[in-house]
This record gives sequence, structure tokens and C-alpha cells, in this order.
Amino acid sequence: MVKETNISINSDRLWDSLMTMAKIGPGIAGGNNRQTVTVEDGEARKLLQKWSEDAGMTMKVDELGSMFFKREGTDKNALPVVIGSHLDTQPTGGKYDGVLGVLAGLEIVRTLNDLNIQTKHPILVVNWTNEEGSRFPPAMMASAGYAGIYEVNTLLSAKDAEGNIFGNELDKIGWKGSEPVGSQKFHCYYELHIEQGPILETEEVDIGIVTHGQGLKWLEVKLSGVEQHTGTTPMNVRKDTSLALSEIILAVNHIANKNQPNALGSVGHIEVSPNSRNVIAGNSLFTVDIRSPDINKLVKMENELKQMTTDICKKHKIEFKMDQIGGFDPVAFDKDCLNNIRNSAKKFGYSYKNIVSGAGHDACWINTVAPSAMIMCPCVDGLSHNEAEEIKPEWASSSTNVMLHAAITSAT
Amino acid sequence: MVKETNISINSDRLWDSLMTMAKIGPGIAGGNNRQTVTVEDGEARKLLQKWSEDAGMTMKVDELGSMFFKREGTDKNALPVVIGSHLDTQPTGGKYDGVLGVLAGLEIVRTLNDLNIQTKHPILVVNWTNEEGSRFPPAMMASAGYAGIYEVNTLLSAKDAEGNIFGNELDKIGWKGSEPVGSQKFHCYYELHIEQGPILETEEVDIGIVTHGQGLKWLEVKLSGVEQHTGTTPMNVRKDTSLALSEIILAVNHIANKNQPNALGSVGHIEVSPNSRNVIAGNSLFTVDIRSPDINKLVKMENELKQMTTDICKKHKIEFKMDQIGGFDPVAFDKDCLNNIRNSAKKFGYSYKNIVSGAGHDACWINTVAPSAMIMCPCVDGLSHNEAEEIKPEWASSSTNVMLHAAITSAT
Repeated sequence: MVKETNISINSDRLWDSLMTMAKIGPGIAGGNNRQTVTVEDGEARKLLQKWSEDAGMTMKVDELGSMFFKREGTDKNALPVVIGSHLDTQPTGGKYDGVLGVLAGLEIVRTLNDLNIQTKHPILVVNWTNEEGSRFPPAMMASAGYAGIYEVNTLLSAKDAEGNIFGNELDKIGWKGSEPVGSQKFHCYYELHIEQGPILETEEVDIGIVTHGQGLKWLEVKLSGVEQHTGTTPMNVRKDTSLALSEIILAVNHIANKNQPNALGSVGHIEVSPNSRNVIAGNSLFTVDIRSPDINKLVKMENELKQMTTDICKKHKIEFKMDQIGGFDPVAFDKDCLNNIRNSAKKFGYSYKNIVSGAGHDACWINTVAPSAMIMCPCVDGLSHNEAEEIKPEWASSSTNVMLHAAITSAT
Repeated sequence: MVKETNISINSDRLWDSLMTMAKIGPGIAGGNNRQTVTVEDGEARKLLQKWSEDAGMTMKVDELGSMFFKREGTDKNALPVVIGSHLDTQPTGGKYDGVLGVLAGLEIVRTLNDLNIQTKHPILVVNWTNEEGSRFPPAMMASAGYAGIYEVNTLLSAKDAEGNIFGNELDKIGWKGSEPVGSQKFHCYYELHIEQGPILETEEVDIGIVTHGQGLKWLEVKLSGVEQHTGTTPMNVRKDTSLALSEIILAVNHIANKNQPNALGSVGHIEVSPNSRNVIAGNSLFTVDIRSPDINKLVKMENELKQMTTDICKKHKIEFKMDQIGGFDPVAFDKDCLNNIRNSAKKFGYSYKNIVSGAGHDACWINTVAPSAMIMCPCVDGLSHNEAEEIKPEWASSSTNVMLHAAITSAT
């Protein structure tokens, strides 16, 4: 499948780096537990620093602990072409989610060094702090800070479940830097990530060109009926929220299916009350998760859901309340960056396909302040946030090759 | 509505007794917390003993603490006509559930005394221990023991949530009797109970003639799909148990509605896993509660549910497991006893209607060993197992009048 080009990365070196990094913060089932601002996170950062400095780059660290490694360009005034992702993992995470994107940046610099290629723009390799958000909310913390979505002080005062403060913990592991957050401007930003879904592997496509990030709405729905004895209340006088709940779940599914392509909808969080076998569910609480890469479609889906919920609850004589408790707008990645990725894939003869990122990524926030794009490589069974997360070495290699050529194009 | 007859109870005395008994083990919201074999239960028993002995009755107490108060008949060989229910309440129970049935028996004896009426058969007023089962399982404990459904020693060794043993607690409050359980045979058994449902009040009917007790099946359903990220998994590759769950809940409702009259069906207990907003419900567990007074219908409903569940799960590519985890067969009460009740209601000019008892009652077990029947009176808003449980004095009075004449007929 892969045609040789005269400039390509060192696949074995990339894979060795991935495997070496995976030894830091091992999980219990073959993956990684390297949560943000832990001792293990600190060790991983030291290793990345060593590798990057060995590759001739200089490091700056910002107040949120994000690490920026610079390979100088020939034009001192040119802004850097930035490649990055994150080294932190979920508590039961994998070896590639985030890590691949950072080490791909390192490998690209190593390759440019090997081949003695100078670029006009500097290359900046970034490790964003706390992308996962599994210990300290929010997810994509440092890139959100970079993009000015949240105040830096607000982020520094985030607490984990034990009440530890993010800024203090960052300081403890020695990675609270002095660079003001957002002070380093970008020419453009590329992020390589595993797909975390099954499309590329199933369809045997080498490269996912991520044209959009899904928009998301989390709508919390509260249903109020009447708590009654299941044995003494005739069917026709019940106000059973489990029936409205069921119809709304099916409505969410219907709405997602009729708003294709790329629309998603589901209910993963359900609580009925009093949750007793012989008491009619007088109250229910659940969260609807709807997604679309098209903001108009996302709003349309929400409106359809509100209308259907109103009708369903009226039919069942149930009261309801629907509140948005989370969400973000869809992201349309930069057309030029996407073209660079597409042209690189063509050059190598890789099969490619436009896809939508369902999960949030640092690139989604960076795209609000700099032209950005994402590349995705397949992952086995679409599995992620799981120690069994796996990719093939050739997937890492081909996607990093695409990134290399896109970065060279942008940096020239 | 009520026509006078020349034999009727003393309504004020009955109501006074209900209100006096309600002072023992008051709840926090106007009802009662007089759980079985507590100090309060002991006090209530003492009061009943005093009232019954003042009415000339003699007491026997069996090994499960059930109290039997006897008014002699003229025929020494005749078995007693038995009237009873229970004095124990739910932790947040009402003043009438159970209590009315016991004090109606007392009031009937008091009335027979007032009017100097002798009956051929003795009259026995019973207080069954632990009908509620809210502290020690099973519910309807002592009547189940009487009917031979469980071994007496098994029941005596039942434990509450703190590990206290039923037999020990019964002993502590001084009400472990010496009569072998089931030794006193019955000519017939009548139980008056509040409806605990809304039918009689809604339809403005004075008397419910309980022809059947609902049969019940509790079917626990486990669904296994695949736990996946809601943002990265396309709609068409999901195995989302929330969809199968929803369709099955609606199927339960459909099955109950099409198997009328008196069929019931609902799902009050639902757990989805991992119960996270952004993870597809890979697993679900819920309990289906189906009821019918007709055993053939109940079996038909179960079969319909199995077939629909099979079809639904096949469609969604979900695995399922369905197990019966509880239930009892429908009860058909004794036709002669029911006729006596119906004739009594007619005599008074009360409106009446055949109804089905949705909840379990001591009469359901006693019916397996002696001809039995139940009378129900309306209760406000169908509310029960709730401190706000309420009835009107005239409802207590009219239903006890019906019981009086039915008992006299049986005892003659």
C-alpha cells in the first residue's frame, strides 16, 4: 500500500519511543495509568525533555505546565508550525491516546535533523497539560487556557476528588513554568491522534482527515410523574415516568439517525426513583448526549428533541424539565491545513477519508486561535480509554509520514 | 346512601379506637411508625389485649406472636369465623393499613355484645404478626407460617438489616406465644382492608368485593451490549442496551394493556452500566413486574414478554438473560364468603364493585387453608404505605357493617 517517498520518518525509532514512554506509569492490564501532574507524569515529561533536547530543541514551559520544544527556522520572524498532543492518560488508559501525537512531533524533528532539512518557520513540539481531565476538570485544560476559554487562575485552582489543587500539584512535580499562557503564537497547529472509533479500521482506510470536531450538547432531563404501588394502581391512571423515559430514549436514537451524516445521539446516564421493583418510577433523571459536526443540525436536533419530549410527556401526563449541562460548538478545521494533509496522503499513496472527531481534542480549542487540523490513524476495534487500546506500528508510521509532509509544506 | 338496618356497628367507637391505636408509634408526618416486634408493636398488642378482654374474649398467642381473641359460640364443636389483619405498619406507614381490619373485628364483637347476639360458631379476632415485612422478610410472615408456606423455624430465624433475629426480638417484647402455629383451624376467614388504590374513591363506590388477589411475577432482565464512547461510535455499529431496555419497557406496558381486565405491568427498577453521560450503556439490569388475577393470563403475559424481548434484543444485537426472582400465583377468594359480603352490601344499600387486590394480604395465604374473602373500603387518592394515608370515618363504618353481617351469616 505504501509507496516510498524520498523523505520519510524512521518507523522503528518512532515505535521504540512509544514503547519506551509506555514504560512510565504502567497500568495493570498492559496499558498506562499516567494521570496528569502525578509523579509518573513528571517522569514522562523529563524523558520528553531529554529526547527533545538531544534532538537540538530548546524548551519553554508555561504556567499551566504545557511544554514547548522549539526547532529554529531560517526566518526569525516566522511563527512556528506546531505539532503536539498530550502525554497524560486516563486511569486505565492506553499507550497511544495523546502520546502518539507528541512523539510524532519529536520524530518529525528527528527526521528533519537526519535529513538536514531547514524550514523557514520554526517547528514547535507541544505537550499540553491535562488533556484527559480525568483527575482535574476540565478536559483539554491547558489548550483551553491557551485559547483563552478559561482564566488561567481558574484552571490553576481546579480541584481533584481528594481536594488537591491543580496548581499546587503541578508545582510539586516541578513543572509549573514561567511562560505566560498563550504568549507563544502559532503559524498553524497539527495534531495526530488515534481514531478512538472503528471507522478507519473497519473500512481499511490508512488516514483519517479530520475535517470537523463534533459539536456536543448534554441535555439533562427530569421527569416528574407519580410514585405509586405497582400492584394497586390501574394502568389507565398511572403517571409512570419510565414510559416517557423509554420513548424519549428511542426519540433520541431516531433523531440521530435521521440527521446523518455524522450525527450521534444516546442516553448513557439514567436514574429512576425510588428505583424499587414494586413502585412506579415517579421520577426519572437522565442525560441526553447529542452530537453533530454541523451547528445548524445540532440546534435542529435539540429542537426536535424538545418537541418530541413535549409531546411524549403530554401523552403520559408527565411534567418535564430539560437543561443543557454541557456542550461545545462544532469545530471546522482549517482548509489549508487539511489540504496539506490530503496532499501528503496522496503523495504516499495512502488511502484516506474525511472523518469527524467525536471526542474533544486539544486541536479543537487551538483551532479557535490558530489554523489547525487533525490526522487520525486507525486503532484496533475502535477501542480507547482502555488499557487494551492498540495500534499497528505501520499505522503510527504512515500517519506520522503524512504529518511530516504536511508540516514541511506549512513550514516552507 | 346508607340505609339503616336494625343491626349495625357503633361508628364512633370504631373511629375512636382507630385514633387511639394511632397514638402508639406515631410517625413524623401524621401517620405511624409501628414496625413489627418493636417496643411500639408490643404496646399496640397490649392495648388490643385489654380491649379484647374487656369485650369478654380470651386470648391465645402462637409461636410467631399472632394473637387470637375468641368469643365463644353456642356450638362447642363449631370452628370459628375469623376476622383479622395486622397492627404492624411500614416505617412511614398510615393509621389504617391493617389496623382497620383488626379493629373492625373487635368492633364486630363489641356490637354482638351490645345487641346480645349469640352465634353458633365462635368469632375469632386475629392480629397477624409482621404482615408488612419491612423489617423482617418475608411480608405476610405469620399468615404464611399459619398456612404452612414456610417452616416456623425458618421464619423465627429471619434477620433484619442489623442482623437481629426475628424470634429473639419477638421474645424480647414478650409476645412469643406457646400455641403451635396453625393449630387453630378456621371455619372461614374475612379480612377488611383499605384499598391502597384509587378505584373505589374515583368511581365513588362504597364497598370493594375482592374476588381475586393478583398473581405476580418479578422477572429480572440483564442486557449485554458493548460499552463504547458516545462521541466516536457511529450509530450503525452500536450495541446500545438503553434502546433494547426502552423497547422492552414499552413492551411490558403494551402487554399489560392488551391483557385487561386487571392486568398490570411496569418496570420500576432500572440500572444501566457504566451509567456515564458519554459512554453507551453496555449493560442494563431491570426488573419487570407483571400481575394478573388469572394464572393463564399471567403465564401468557410472561410468554409474550419473552418473545418480544427475544425479538427486540435480536434487532439490537443485544444478549439477554431473564430470570424469575419473585412472584406468587393469583388467588381466587371463596365464592360463599364473597356472596355473604355482596348480600351484606346490598342489605345496607351500599354501592359495591368486584375488585382485585393488587397487593399481598394475609388473606391470600389463609385462603389456601380456609375459605376466605376480603372487603375493601376506599382510601383518599389511593395512597398507602405513606403517612398521608387517609380514609373517611363513614368508609370505615360502612365496610365494617358489611363485615358484621357477612360474619353473622357465616357464624349462624
